[in-house]
Parts: sequence; structure tokens; C-alpha cells
Amino acid sequence: MPYVLISTQIRLECGPTICGDESSDPELMAELGAVLTKQVGNNFKEYRSEETARVILNRLEKLDYRVITSCGMGQTIIWTLHKQL
Amino acid sequence: MPYVLISTQIRLECGPTICGDESSDPELMAELGAVLTKQVGNNFKEYRSEETARVILNRLEKLDYRVITSCGMGQTIIWTLHKQL
Amino acid sequence: MPYVLISTQIRLECGPTICGDESSDPELMAELGAVLTKQVGNNFKEYRSEETARVILNRLEKLDYRVITSCGMGQTIIWTLHKQL
Amino acid sequence: MPYVLISTQIRLECGPTICGDESSDPELMAELGAVLTKQVGNNFKEYRSEETARVILNRLEKLDYRVITSCGMGQTIIWTLHKQL
Amino acid sequence: MPYVLISTQIRLECGPTICGDESSDPELMAELGAVLTKQVGNNFKEYRSEETARVILNRLEKLDYRVITSCGMGQTIIWTLHKQL
Repeated sequence: MPYVLISTQIRLECGPTICGDESSDPELMAELGAVLTKQVGNNFKEYRSEETARVILNRLEKLDYRVITSCGMGQTIIWTLHKQL
Repeated sequence: MPYVLISTQIRLECGPTICGDESSDPELMAELGAVLTKQVGNNFKEYRSEETARVILNRLEKLDYRVITSCGMGQTIIWTLHKQL
Repeated sequence: MPYVLISTQIRLECGPTICGDESSDPELMAELGAVLTKQVGNNFKEYRSEETARVILNRLEKLDYRVITSCGMGQTIIWTLHKQL
Repeated sequence: MPYVLISTQIRLECGPTICGDESSDPELMAELGAVLTKQVGNNFKEYRSEETARVILNRLEKLDYRVITSCGMGQTIIWTLHKQL
Repeated sequence: MPYVLISTQIRLECGPTICGDESSDPELMAELGAVLTKQVGNNFKEYRSEETARVILNRLEKLDYRVITSCGMGQTIIWTLHKQL
């Protein structure tokens, strides 16, 4: 699972950061400090951390993931990271 | 056909993911688990998978496609992938 | 003229794709199958192809153009391609 | 000053292109054909060229600037260019 | 802390530029000329500089940070920079 997608909303200077979906690697999510949660009104679960995206990017970097690209979609910003296997 | 465009809407943590248009390579689409469908109100067909974008990116990576860039357009996020031939 | 900008609107799975402006290289535009047109209400001309953006990206790749970046602006998605001279 | 930011609005096929701010390198701006102007209602000045963004990108390429990334913000598209010093 | 996120709003040609969050490296923020502030209505602090984003990018470049990607989110533009450690 070499690709990871993380996202945050509206402001960069505070969390939470969404780190994964229900089938993301649980070990990786634990290393990022992300917990599987289900938000009201959603029919899917997501891994959520209270850290800022910057902190999560730095943790992923230590695990050899590198940012390839980012994009904004509405009020959400999404980073695509890749780990060379 | 070295470029592939995939897209998903609104949320990253659930599918579907649009993997191609009517003239996309049918073998590649089958490997991604995408099925040619026509949505109500559209005058074109699209290859659609129920998987999350993250799963599709990882499948494409095994087929030697790499993410070059991503972008948001309204509530849609689009990844451009390239395969070195 | 090593940079080319192409764009499409709203959906990726159908054309048209805008391939250039009035001063774009006519030979390149012909190779892409794009025709110089003037849309109602515009005071400028544009090269327009009925193909999908994916097909245009693949044609440009055969001419040694590579995607550098993409972005969304409103309902338009724009790719910036570069040819190493 | 190795980074340059250029931007254009709404459509790619016509100018103007904003090439710099008040403290941008005047020599570089002159080479791009950009003139320092102050728009009505703004409390800052900007370097503005009547050329399309594509023409400006090609001029910057001859000066060894390369496109690193682009993004859309509202109806504006912004390119970030870098010159290896 | 190899990743830095900077952002600015609406226009590129004037500041301020947001350079970090409360847990950003204070030494790096001082080198960028950014001051820790709390805006009315926010429950978090941010490092803010009055310089344009272009000036901040150039200062970060002298400190070996390189732009990886940019994106627009609403009226905000965000650059992701990385320092090879």
C-alpha cells in the first residue's frame, strides 16, 4: 500500500487531519496517532488524528513517504504521498 | 496509452472511483475492477469502480503507473498518472 | 514554444479539449486534431478538439511533451505540459 | 530571487498575465514585457503584461525558470516557477 | 521538521503570509520574519509575516527548502515545501 492520502479542512494551523479510510493499514495509522472513527451522518469510517497536517507529513516522512502532489477540493486540502518500496 | 486519469467526488474515504472513459483500455479497466456504466442524464459512458481512490492508485502502481499531479475541480479530485513505456 | 496548456470543463470522460490560443503553433495544433474556433461571446479564438483530455495528453506524449502539473479553476481543469528542447 | 509567481484569470487563451509584485526584479519584469500598474481599488501595485500566460511561461523558460507547480484559487490560476541558481 | 506549509489569501501581490502554526520551529519562523499571533475568532495561533509569499519562498529557498506542490482551497493558496535532511 505505497500511496497514502491525508486531508484537512479550512485551516492548516489546527487539526484534525484525516489519515486514512477503513481499509488503511492499521499499523501505519497507529504510528500516525490516528484513530478509526465514524462521524455523524457518514456511512463510512475514517482514521482521524488531532494533529495538524504538518505534523502528520513529518511523521510520514520519517516512514519514507514523500509528498507527490496536493490539491484543494472545496474547503478540503488533500496531500498524496508515496513510499518507494 | 500512457496517461490515466482517475477521479472521485467529495470524500476520499469511500468510493466510487471513476477510472476511465469509453475509449479507455478495457484490459486495464478490468485489472482495476472498473465496469463501463452510463449514469442517468449523461450522454457518455465511464468506467466506474466501487473501490476508494487509494486502492485504485495502489493497483495502478503495481502496473507501473505513477502519480504525476492531482487537482480539485469543484467537488471532484482528479489524479493524472503516467506509465513510462 | 516548449509549454503547452490544455484544458477541459466539468467532466473528464468527454470532450471537447481546448488545446491552444490564437498564437499557438498551427502545426502542433493540427497534429492534435484541434481547430481554431471562436465561441459566441468571446473576443478571442481558441484551438478546440472534440477528443477527451486523456487522448490529447497521449498524443502530446508521443510528441515528447510531459505533464508537469495540473490545476482546477472553477469548473475547468488545466494541464501544463513541457517539452525538453 | 529564484521564485517567480505568475497568474491569470478565468481564461487561458487571452491575457493579461500578472507577472510580479512591487518588489519584483524590474529587469526581469522588463524582459517579460510587464509594466508596473495599480488597479482601481487595490492598495498595492502589480506587474502586468498583455500576453497570455503561455507566452510568459515560454519567455521565463528561456531565462532558465521552470514550472514547479500550478494551482487554482477561485477564478485565478497561479504558476510557481523556480530558477536553479 | 522537514515540511513547511505557507499560505496567503486572495492576492499574490501583497502580504500577509501565514508561515506556521503554534508548534512550528520558532527559530525558523524568526528567520522568516514571522510573528506568533492570534486572530479574532480563532482558537489557535499562527505565525504571520507581512511579506508577500514570493519573498517568503525565496527566504525558505536560502534555508534549503524547496517547493514540492501548491494548491488552492477556496480563496487561500498553500505551498508545501520540503527540506532534504
